[in-house]
Amino acid sequence: MKIICRKNDLFSSINIVSKAVASKTTMDILECILIETDNDRVRLTANDTEIGIETYFDAEVMEEGQIALEARMFSDMIKRLPDSDVSIETFDNMKTEIHCEKIHFDIQGKSGEDFTRLPDIEHHHEITLSQFDIKEMIRQTLFSVSSNENNKLMTGEQIKIEDNTLMITSLDGHRISLRRMALQEECADIEVIVPGKTMSELLKILPGEAKDLVTLCFSDKHILFRFGDTRIVSRLLDGKFYNINQIISTDYEIKLTVNKMDFIRSLDRSTLFVKESDRKPIMMQTHGNLVDISIHSQMGAMDDQLMGQKEGKDITIGLNPRFMLDALRAIDDESVTMYFINDVAPCIIRNDSETYLYIVLPIMIRKNI
Amino acid sequence: MKIICRKNDLFSSINIVSKAVASKTTMDILECILIETDNDRVRLTANDTEIGIETYFDAEVMEEGQIALEARMFSDMIKRLPDSDVSIETFDNMKTEIHCEKIHFDIQGKSGEDFTRLPDIEHHHEITLSQFDIKEMIRQTLFSVSSNENNKLMTGEQIKIEDNTLMITSLDGHRISLRRMALQEECADIEVIVPGKTMSELLKILPGEAKDLVTLCFSDKHILFRFGDTRIVSRLLDGKFYNINQIISTDYEIKLTVNKMDFIRSLDRSTLFVKESDRKPIMMQTHGNLVDISIHSQMGAMDDQLMGQKEGKDITIGLNPRFMLDALRAIDDESVTMYFINDVAPCIIRNDSETYLYIVLPIMIRKNI
Repeated sequence: MKIICRKNDLFSSINIVSKAVASKTTMDILECILIETDNDRVRLTANDTEIGIETYFDAEVMEEGQIALEARMFSDMIKRLPDSDVSIETFDNMKTEIHCEKIHFDIQGKSGEDFTRLPDIEHHHEITLSQFDIKEMIRQTLFSVSSNENNKLMTGEQIKIEDNTLMITSLDGHRISLRRMALQEECADIEVIVPGKTMSELLKILPGEAKDLVTLCFSDKHILFRFGDTRIVSRLLDGKFYNINQIISTDYEIKLTVNKMDFIRSLDRSTLFVKESDRKPIMMQTHGNLVDISIHSQMGAMDDQLMGQKEGKDITIGLNPRFMLDALRAIDDESVTMYFINDVAPCIIRNDSETYLYIVLPIMIRKNI
Repeated sequence: MKIICRKNDLFSSINIVSKAVASKTTMDILECILIETDNDRVRLTANDTEIGIETYFDAEVMEEGQIALEARMFSDMIKRLPDSDVSIETFDNMKTEIHCEKIHFDIQGKSGEDFTRLPDIEHHHEITLSQFDIKEMIRQTLFSVSSNENNKLMTGEQIKIEDNTLMITSLDGHRISLRRMALQEECADIEVIVPGKTMSELLKILPGEAKDLVTLCFSDKHILFRFGDTRIVSRLLDGKFYNINQIISTDYEIKLTVNKMDFIRSLDRSTLFVKESDRKPIMMQTHGNLVDISIHSQMGAMDDQLMGQKEGKDITIGLNPRFMLDALRAIDDESVTMYFINDVAPCIIRNDSETYLYIVLPIMIRKNI
């Protein structure tokens, strides 16, 4: 193989596929990036078997072929080259030479034959969205994916299409995050669970311009994200996601609206008195439109007061301040509205159009605190 | 004690003294910041017994007194307060209340009586310098302080005044860094060794404006840095620093000048082929004004070429690329000049005025590589 390309084209492409390079593996080939010629373009592929990414860039192909290069070394070398033409040439025994101006690198490549290529996805279902929209929906839900591998389904996000509405949901047993968006085009119903790691990498790779599009294709086992010259394929998690409709009630006894930033700052202060691993609640207590926020722990105590707008009776409820913060920080609105039934029912944070909905389960507090 | 002050005054002062709070200690009191009233000002002190810092800020002192508060918690609390008036008040059993607007913190303080105050330094020798100058001199030498505690003296920097010239020197057995500056004022000769950690903290705390001054005071056991409302006292390292004059020779056989950034970029590329713990050298070989930089390791090989200006015969020498990079990155000049005698004598990098001088010992290379 021999190709000549622009350093910046090559390096951008390496950055994209690097997200799918395996980091801890006994299979050396998974730590490589596969370089393959394809007419007058070059395809880079990385695949850690959970998530696979391929992307194309333009190059002058002098000699067709393929080579697998150790990803970290390859990336570090190209990064340190001047912004100029780069040639990559392979020789016997997979020896590879990289040239740029006066600089000359020699490294040992591996046979591309051993590389696991991306699965071919049958395009049964397909929707096309703005990159900005999908990124926002992921960013605003991904935080409540569980990191506990014991409950595999909770480590993923549900992508669901129903009645031409796209919903992304995640939950970890203590809280639920849900974003909804009406789709412009007619679309069949679908329901899949995508690993949290895939969503996290997608956030990093998708440029996210509102005008740029991304197409999602669904097969039984995989999801494909296609945009520009790049394809990301991920395995799906196998199983039936939780039915959250029974928890999402539109009934409420108390409706409380507060300034979001004031609430965030107060909760942030209260976390000083909660140890990292602890589940110590803050106590939130309304007195008319006044909202007392307090926490008392071994480390000390905080009392704070916000001004809100309340409908319904007063409430005293214990909530995990970190869970509340995660939800509030995902909301772009200036003020947020919480709905309560009583001190043992979930706290529901949602907007009127229900494009977002966050549920945080309360923590029982002793009334004599 | 009861004081009222501006949040930002208090927080800036906490940030300064925090650098001297002990992080891993069995003595709880060393993890505290001491707050003491002093007429219409408040003094904060932290002291990990190696380095101690005190600083003052203005406050309304309602009731005189002192209290020691756990530094991390104190800092985190104040950081999270709005920019407004803050009151700190102590009660029986060292209970401490902090108020700001609607926010109310309660924490447990400790008796200030147990706190180790800063030693009083007799001002035998004293020099006053621009903060900018001393920061630059430290920044440009500190990297070659040894991290190996087995040779305690090498973990410090020598500050030496001789013939009204200030010199700061560090060395780690493989390289030497030296900066010189002529002093404006008449000053007695002095020679002390300051712990690297002190120098490192000083870099972070000194604002470093060229017009602002810092005074250095020397006693037998301590050095004091005094600027603005702040005093930093550090223990000195006990012993006789290495005599480096015998290594610094102005004789040379070969003089080689190269563009600094080109050289840095080439060395940086070469480090890709050196494992972190490894002492693999680059080979530098001149052919007239051409300088070949090459490295061959198990990880691969690099060859690169720079254009330089050479006086004297050609040379082939092995050098540690990371040591060369550290020195080059500390130099502000556009081009750098190296002086060599042969392939086993030190490589000396210096400017004509000798305000800086870096020495890197060569690594023996097999000639048949």
